[in-house]
Amino acid sequence: MAEVPNKQIIFKSFIVGAPKVSDMELKVGSIKLQVPKGSGAVLVKNLYLSCDPYMRGRMREYYGSYIPPFVPGLPLEGFGVFRVIDSDHPDFLPDDLVTGITKWEEYSLINKTEGWRKILSTDVPISYHVGLFGMPGFTSYAGFYEVCSPKKGDFVFVSAASGAVGQLVGQLAKMHGCYVVGSAGSDQKVNLLKNKLGFDDAFNYEEEKDLDAALKRCFPDGIDIYFENVGGAMLDAVLLNMRDHGRIAVCGLVSQHSVSDISGTHNLINLITKKVRMQGFLMSDYLHLFPQFLHQISEYYKQGKIVYIEDMNEGLENAIDAFLGLFSGKNVGKQVIRVAYEN
Amino acid sequence: MAEVPNKQIIFKSFIVGAPKVSDMELKVGSIKLQVPKGSGAVLVKNLYLSCDPYMRGRMREYYGSYIPPFVPGLPLEGFGVFRVIDSDHPDFLPDDLVTGITKWEEYSLINKTEGWRKILSTDVPISYHVGLFGMPGFTSYAGFYEVCSPKKGDFVFVSAASGAVGQLVGQLAKMHGCYVVGSAGSDQKVNLLKNKLGFDDAFNYEEEKDLDAALKRCFPDGIDIYFENVGGAMLDAVLLNMRDHGRIAVCGLVSQHSVSDISGTHNLINLITKKVRMQGFLMSDYLHLFPQFLHQISEYYKQGKIVYIEDMNEGLENAIDAFLGLFSGKNVGKQVIRVAYEN
Repeated sequence: MAEVPNKQIIFKSFIVGAPKVSDMELKVGSIKLQVPKGSGAVLVKNLYLSCDPYMRGRMREYYGSYIPPFVPGLPLEGFGVFRVIDSDHPDFLPDDLVTGITKWEEYSLINKTEGWRKILSTDVPISYHVGLFGMPGFTSYAGFYEVCSPKKGDFVFVSAASGAVGQLVGQLAKMHGCYVVGSAGSDQKVNLLKNKLGFDDAFNYEEEKDLDAALKRCFPDGIDIYFENVGGAMLDAVLLNMRDHGRIAVCGLVSQHSVSDISGTHNLINLITKKVRMQGFLMSDYLHLFPQFLHQISEYYKQGKIVYIEDMNEGLENAIDAFLGLFSGKNVGKQVIRVAYEN
Repeated sequence: MAEVPNKQIIFKSFIVGAPKVSDMELKVGSIKLQVPKGSGAVLVKNLYLSCDPYMRGRMREYYGSYIPPFVPGLPLEGFGVFRVIDSDHPDFLPDDLVTGITKWEEYSLINKTEGWRKILSTDVPISYHVGLFGMPGFTSYAGFYEVCSPKKGDFVFVSAASGAVGQLVGQLAKMHGCYVVGSAGSDQKVNLLKNKLGFDDAFNYEEEKDLDAALKRCFPDGIDIYFENVGGAMLDAVLLNMRDHGRIAVCGLVSQHSVSDISGTHNLINLITKKVRMQGFLMSDYLHLFPQFLHQISEYYKQGKIVYIEDMNEGLENAIDAFLGLFSGKNVGKQVIRVAYEN
């Protein structure tokens, strides 16, 4: 069988600071649309690729992380939605629609299928399987219910609130009977938080001279739960405003992916005086809850109780910009790349 | 009745940075050794006064802390052991030996007796009631058992390990079957940790060029539990060495009492990747466990299973230096002032 051209986003070399355009490149390789017999591999056509902040951690040399680094010279990897074209694996057959880890290219030959999940129902947008019904949505679900110990009436603050994770956290907290405020980096996002995502209040942190004052304005009685996605100055301001026995779920510190946290966190003394629990977590600790999550969130979605905002980018040609946009806050909602429309 | 002279340590005015000699002064006032009838007050002769780092927090203007500030012009307050001389309170009679909050002076007329506890048994040194059997000991007990979630075999690191709290944490952890390493600020303290307090290992952080390297040497497999008493650079080094699902009990950040944490904490990202729980606490949340603590630790002490090191300072004349010594690490063990020997 002849080879076909295969556009790929190649990871060039390990980086130190913030990811840059020059750290990746679009190349056109070639691939046979056939799985070698006996390989146990699966050949897929990628439809959607997910841009996620954790991928920054795979761009540096191995440092004992929970996930190995990308390999320089090979395509990036990440969550995606894809169609099986050919298969030597008994669980995945041609035409199956699947979500799981794939590579940043048009077609991928893959022999690691751990964590792959067949998409059986197409009554929700299939790209949502890397967002609302995927790792980010599950991170919101596990983080909110399992880490935040939420109670009705709690005052909840979510940073990066319109992002892939934050937007669902806010909606779950509202359904739980909490008072929910979000922060984001543009007036457009603040508008979405208040008018589309149902947050009680929201503010544009770029427009606030004093984050402590902004939080005191939004939470005159303090914060019970902080869902932490950004770190840096926001964390310090939140620490000044926590209530007794507050909880901070540390999901991401996106401000530190890029700048290795030069300024530091200065107000940890408040953990003691307010008896605050600050808990880092990864959704992978809670995978036993995934079926329950999928069922529950699908129901909420179908009942119109939750919405989900995607920032859709067309084509691998725009993939590098889309990925970099995560770290400058350019994305509005979950950042996704549409690699191909299906015929 | 005539008045008698009464030496006092007066708090002069609110401070910003580290406490200094000039922030307090020794004065000689006078006092009648008689309680006004109908006042409900108690007149006590102070025997021992406790120097504790939390007192630094009472030297600044009110900022919403869990405990109000000292009053400029009046004596400092703190835990002590004292003998009742005269009383208009039904629960406390002349000659009763009591521990609780008192004032930094020879004789005190006190009308707030909340938390006072009569010392009924004198088969342990009575000064231990502000240390091993007092707030510091109970902080160790509640912090270790209730906050650290200890398991047999855990790798436990204690900073300020020879201090009032750390020394008991280490001994409890050893009895729990943990591997325990402590850090302290002098070779004398390190020697005590290893040879008197039963720590498996210890190091002098002042002599270590690289705290990360010191911790990797002591914990090649990482740290499960960090009992945090100091903050600053040590916390950052510990964050690099935590194991999956590690716990950090934040008891004190003594390095930050003095310098308002200018350098900051930079490695919080490890909370996520290692799924670490960092929990601030105050012993006051666990007072329901106090009777159980007192019984258990008394038994351990009488059985010779635990020891306790005090740094005894003679007389109110040395009280200011003793208090300031806490913040420069001069004390070896629990810092106590003996105000008077009993006849």
